[in-house]
Amino acid sequence: MDIADRLLAGDRRALARTITLIENGDPEARSILQRLYAHTGHAHIVGVTGAPGSGKSTLVSAMARAYRERNQAVGIIAVDPTSPFTGGALLGDRVRMRDLAGDPGVFIRSMATRGHLGGLARATSEVIMALDAAGYQRILVETVGVGQAEVDIARTAHTTIVVQAPGMGDEVQAIKAGVLEIADVLVINKADRDGVERTESALRMALEAGEQVSHHGRFMSIEPLKPPSPGWRPPILRTVATAQEGISGLVDAVERHAAYLQESGRWHERERTRVELTLREILRDELMALLMTRLPRHLVETHLQQIVARALDPYSAAVALLTATMRTDEGTVG
Amino acid sequence: MDIADRLLAGDRRALARTITLIENGDPEARSILQRLYAHTGHAHIVGVTGAPGSGKSTLVSAMARAYRERNQAVGIIAVDPTSPFTGGALLGDRVRMRDLAGDPGVFIRSMATRGHLGGLARATSEVIMALDAAGYQRILVETVGVGQAEVDIARTAHTTIVVQAPGMGDEVQAIKAGVLEIADVLVINKADRDGVERTESALRMALEAGEQVSHHGRFMSIEPLKPPSPGWRPPILRTVATAQEGISGLVDAVERHAAYLQESGRWHERERTRVELTLREILRDELMALLMTRLPRHLVETHLQQIVARALDPYSAAVALLTATMRTDEGTVG
Repeated sequence: MDIADRLLAGDRRALARTITLIENGDPEARSILQRLYAHTGHAHIVGVTGAPGSGKSTLVSAMARAYRERNQAVGIIAVDPTSPFTGGALLGDRVRMRDLAGDPGVFIRSMATRGHLGGLARATSEVIMALDAAGYQRILVETVGVGQAEVDIARTAHTTIVVQAPGMGDEVQAIKAGVLEIADVLVINKADRDGVERTESALRMALEAGEQVSHHGRFMSIEPLKPPSPGWRPPILRTVATAQEGISGLVDAVERHAAYLQESGRWHERERTRVELTLREILRDELMALLMTRLPRHLVETHLQQIVARALDPYSAAVALLTATMRTDEGTVG
Repeated sequence: MDIADRLLAGDRRALARTITLIENGDPEARSILQRLYAHTGHAHIVGVTGAPGSGKSTLVSAMARAYRERNQAVGIIAVDPTSPFTGGALLGDRVRMRDLAGDPGVFIRSMATRGHLGGLARATSEVIMALDAAGYQRILVETVGVGQAEVDIARTAHTTIVVQAPGMGDEVQAIKAGVLEIADVLVINKADRDGVERTESALRMALEAGEQVSHHGRFMSIEPLKPPSPGWRPPILRTVATAQEGISGLVDAVERHAAYLQESGRWHERERTRVELTLREILRDELMALLMTRLPRHLVETHLQQIVARALDPYSAAVALLTATMRTDEGTVG
């Protein structure tokens, strides 16, 4: 049995190995994923995002426990777009998740950026494929903070949970309001703290303001991140993840959202968006790889030197390099 | 005079217009930037990053004031990778920066993501080009939070300032430790608050741990974000930006870093890295645009449907689509 067969048969080590190959950008990952792909499409992908300090990691662990009580296999991907150098936060997560670690129905993996642009988004969607094929029915994708990573997750998850906590200061609240747009479910975690009422009413106001903007279509000619969902109003839920309080209700809400997506035909719509993004990313990477093998390194080098010296601008250089590659193509064909 | 000439002559409206064209991905932006490029390469690009609540925006305003006292023209780019929907944080910044707004030696621009992957990084580097050509000698690029955007800035800025504040909680501190790797200068802002000593010793320990890892080369086979800088040890400075305290010392440290880069030959090295990244981004975008014009939409559509139905995997689909485009090329040539 090769690695893809073993993964499909439920071998955890084969899954772990596949994820490592994906992270390293190993060509073997690609052939494994080609084999796995037909076995994907069964998982409910849930993005969990929010600012540092909102208790996302604890919430994700608590949700995993609730899913396990319902006999569902759970994959957890903790995406850390910060440097892998120190990784203090993720180390903390791992300690917190220790009680889940012995359970064969749970698979936890932390992923850090390798620093190359856009690479994390593609690797994350490939790890989701691997977990999906391995039979994990719920996949929780946790991201740190607010940023491009969250936008990507909103586009690839079926359901996005935005986590807040009371009393995190005005600036933080204002920034977090920016991610309301991507929320399918809102959670106020650490709800035993002071200020929970104020946080909830602030969220409710922000949600209503967002809805008014949605009714007028595009806002300042900016495309919405997701198509609007009439028939679904993001609920605001309170949890105390450390005490497992409110978690069952949260999981219920996430399941309701899945049912809404299925019944309204939006599940299929989100699948299509996911697939289109994945295809675009693969095409982009393949094209660049193709170009790089065809472009003689000395040609790139001389152009770079000219750009640094301001004797050539990068746009004209790009056109010149592309034209040079095309000419090589024609030469081969003729 | 066309828009590029007017920008080079110091016309602020031409600059503002150029930036809008860049943000909108307008083809005119490209021809303007081609004209401007020869006039770039004079600015010192300074990235300012740190978690929400560290007072980055106030610090950036304070630095701009200090630069103005030294008669240097300052461009400020506030990059907000969150949704443009609410934008509460940036509104706050604008209010804080109001006292700088009447000064012709200061140009402030907020940029928000349009939600397309990687687009913000390219747009930011193009806005930097425009400000550089317009004669702004110091360009401060402020980003919110920790994430991919910060990694990108570390790769495009000459000098990266990482801002912290005392008493922001353990989780936040741990996450922020991840960006130490990219720091050329560390700032503890709000240094009049309790806990400043503890923050400073935590930073110092993290820095020393980072140095030890550096000495052993790569850490867990992960490429460093920047080449190590022997001869430069990131200073840890204390500021109270709201009271303009410590700002002059900070600006001195940033200038010292620029001098270090110049003397060690690393300025040229970073310029090369910047240029290489810019060229790659342009090539990638051009290639995708070229592919999209050549690929018949119906062909993409049928492939997408098959991928959604799991009858085809996205990797094989990408190869099929690329092969189809190549065949069209050959047909045209023959």
